[in-house]
Amino acid sequence: MIKTLAVVGATGAVGRIVLEELEASPLQFEQLRLIASPRSAGQTITFRGKNSTVQPLEPAAFEGVEVVIASTPDDVAGECVPWAVERGAVVIDESAFWRMMPDVPLVVPEVNAEALSQHRGIIASPNCSTTQMVLVLKPLLDRFGLKQVIVSTYQAVSGAGLAAQQELAEATRASLENQSRSPQIFPHSIGFNVIPQIGGPREHGFTSEESKMVHETRKILGQPQLSVIPTCVRVPVMIGHSESIYIESERPMTLETARAALAEAAGLTLVDDLAAGHYPMPITAAGSSSTFVGRLRWDPAHPCGLSLWCVSDNLRKGAASNAVQIAEHLDQHPRLLIVS
Amino acid sequence: MIKTLAVVGATGAVGRIVLEELEASPLQFEQLRLIASPRSAGQTITFRGKNSTVQPLEPAAFEGVEVVIASTPDDVAGECVPWAVERGAVVIDESAFWRMMPDVPLVVPEVNAEALSQHRGIIASPNCSTTQMVLVLKPLLDRFGLKQVIVSTYQAVSGAGLAAQQELAEATRASLENQSRSPQIFPHSIGFNVIPQIGGPREHGFTSEESKMVHETRKILGQPQLSVIPTCVRVPVMIGHSESIYIESERPMTLETARAALAEAAGLTLVDDLAAGHYPMPITAAGSSSTFVGRLRWDPAHPCGLSLWCVSDNLRKGAASNAVQIAEHLDQHPRLLIVS
Repeated sequence: MIKTLAVVGATGAVGRIVLEELEASPLQFEQLRLIASPRSAGQTITFRGKNSTVQPLEPAAFEGVEVVIASTPDDVAGECVPWAVERGAVVIDESAFWRMMPDVPLVVPEVNAEALSQHRGIIASPNCSTTQMVLVLKPLLDRFGLKQVIVSTYQAVSGAGLAAQQELAEATRASLENQSRSPQIFPHSIGFNVIPQIGGPREHGFTSEESKMVHETRKILGQPQLSVIPTCVRVPVMIGHSESIYIESERPMTLETARAALAEAAGLTLVDDLAAGHYPMPITAAGSSSTFVGRLRWDPAHPCGLSLWCVSDNLRKGAASNAVQIAEHLDQHPRLLIVS
Repeated sequence: MIKTLAVVGATGAVGRIVLEELEASPLQFEQLRLIASPRSAGQTITFRGKNSTVQPLEPAAFEGVEVVIASTPDDVAGECVPWAVERGAVVIDESAFWRMMPDVPLVVPEVNAEALSQHRGIIASPNCSTTQMVLVLKPLLDRFGLKQVIVSTYQAVSGAGLAAQQELAEATRASLENQSRSPQIFPHSIGFNVIPQIGGPREHGFTSEESKMVHETRKILGQPQLSVIPTCVRVPVMIGHSESIYIESERPMTLETARAALAEAAGLTLVDDLAAGHYPMPITAAGSSSTFVGRLRWDPAHPCGLSLWCVSDNLRKGAASNAVQIAEHLDQHPRLLIVS
C-alpha cells in the first residue's frame, strides 16, 4: 500500500478528474495530500468522505510523499517535479515537460507498462491525442507491423482547461444571438467554427501538438522511424477527442483480422455498426475511461490500408485515468516505488 | 445571351444562394423563371429589382427554357431533369442522381471545363466535399502526378438544408441549458458533438458521402484508378466544409513547388501563415465563392507526401456558385447550348 499519495493541480480541470478516478479506484493509500498553486491553496476538498485542505505548491509540500500525480502547466512541472523526486517520491507527470527525456518512461499501461521499470523518479503520461491513438496502433503493430499513420484530429476544448469550456459556451451563445465576442484562450472564435491550430509553430509547418503526436507515438511504441503524419484541429465540442486514422501496415490485413485484433485489445471498446448508427462519438465517450473505436473500413484493393475512427474522453484516458492507472501499476509492483 | 434561365428549387437553401450569385454574376438572360415544389409555389421573389412568382415544378414549367439550374433532392432530379431536356433545355443539376452516368459531364469549371463539350443535355455539379478537394488536387496532379489521397472532412450542417441549421441551433441551445432534444435530421444530436456518418452504408464499410468523394473525384480528374480514402464527418458548424487532406504524389515535391502550384491555381486562395494565425476556417470562408487552402506541411523524409487544410462555403463553391459558373461558361460558348 502507498503511504502518502499527493495530487498536484488538485483544483484544475484534470486534477478534479484525478480525484474522481481515485475515488473509484481500488488503489489504497494511507494519506492523500492535495497540492495546488498558492492562488488555489486553502480550498477544502472532500475525498472518500474526508475533508482535506489544499496545500500550496512548494518544495516542503513533498516531504514524506511516496507517489505524486501532477497535472500542471509545462513550466510548473519543470520546476516542481524535481522537488518531489529529490525527496524520494515517484512522480507521474501529465505535462509535456519531461515526456521526451531519454530516462523518463512515457507510459500507457496497456501499451508499454514494461517501460516503467526504467524510471528514475519521473514517469510521464502522454498527450491526450497520443494516448488514444497508441491504444489503437499497438494491437495492429503487434499483428501486422506499421509502415505509416495519417491522423486528423477533432479535439475538444477541455484540453485547454476549464476556462476554455466557458469560452466555447460564451462564444456559442454570442453566435446564436448574432453577436461577436473576442476570444481569450483560442486564437479565433471557436463558436460554430473549427480551428486548424493547436499549439505554436514547429518545424516543416507542423504545430507543437502535431509534433507531440509524432514523437510521443514513436517513443511509446518503440518505433523511432515510424512515419506519423498528424493534422490537429480544435472543434466546438466540450469533452472527447475524435481521431480519423489511416493506417498502412507492413503485412496485409483484412477487415476481419483487423477487427479481431482491436476487439481483444486492452483499453479499447469496439463500437462498429454503421447500419445501426453505432460508432464512437464525443457525447457517448465523455465520462468513460475507455477508448472507443469504430467505422473500420478496408478496401481489398489496398490490403495494407485500414481507416478507422477513435474517440476518447481527453480528460480521462487522455489524462487523469491514465495517470491513476500508472499509480495502480506502481502499487501492484512495489519494487517500482524504489527509485534507482 | 441566354433567352430563358430557370432556377429549380428556388426557395431552398442552395436555390436562394443560386439567385444571390446570379444577381452578382455578369451572366445576361432575357427571362428568369423560378420553379419550386408545389408546396413552395406561389411565393414572390425579387430578383434584380423585379418580382417573380415561383411556379410549380411540372413538365410544362420547362417550355421555352434554354438553361436550367436545378437544386433538388436526388429523387426529384431523377424525375424532373428529363422533362427539361426533352423540351430542349440544357440542365445544370446539383443533385447526385445523374453525376456518375457515363454521358453526363461532372464539372468544376476551373478543373475540367473541357468535359462540357460532351454533354447531351445534362451537366452535373459535384458533391460539395468533392468540388473543393478537386480544386486542390488538380494543380498537384498536373505538376507532380497523384498516387493516393487520404481525406478527413469536417462538414457543416447546411449541407443537409435549412432545417439542419435550425436543428444545430436548437440542439446547441438545449445542450447549453443541460436539456436533451431528439434529433430529427441527423442520426444523433449534433450540438457540441461530431458525427462520423454522412449518408447511408455502402460497400467495404464506407458511407454514401464517402463513396461520392471516391467516384466523383476519379471522374472529374480523369483518374479512374486513383486511390481516394475518405472519412466524412459532420461537425457543429453552420456553413463551410473543412478538409484535412494528405496527398501522395508520383513525383517528388517540395513545400515551395507545392505552394507555387496551389498559389497560381484558378479558384484557390492560399491562406498559409501559421505563425500569424492565418489559415482557412469556416467562419472566414462562409459567404465567399473561393476555396481556401493553407496549413501546407511537407516532410523532407517523405518528399512525395503533402498535408494541407482546405475550407470552402459548401453552399457556394460547393453548390450554387459552381452551377452559376457552369451557366456562365455555357453563355460564353454558345455552341454548348445546342444539345447533340
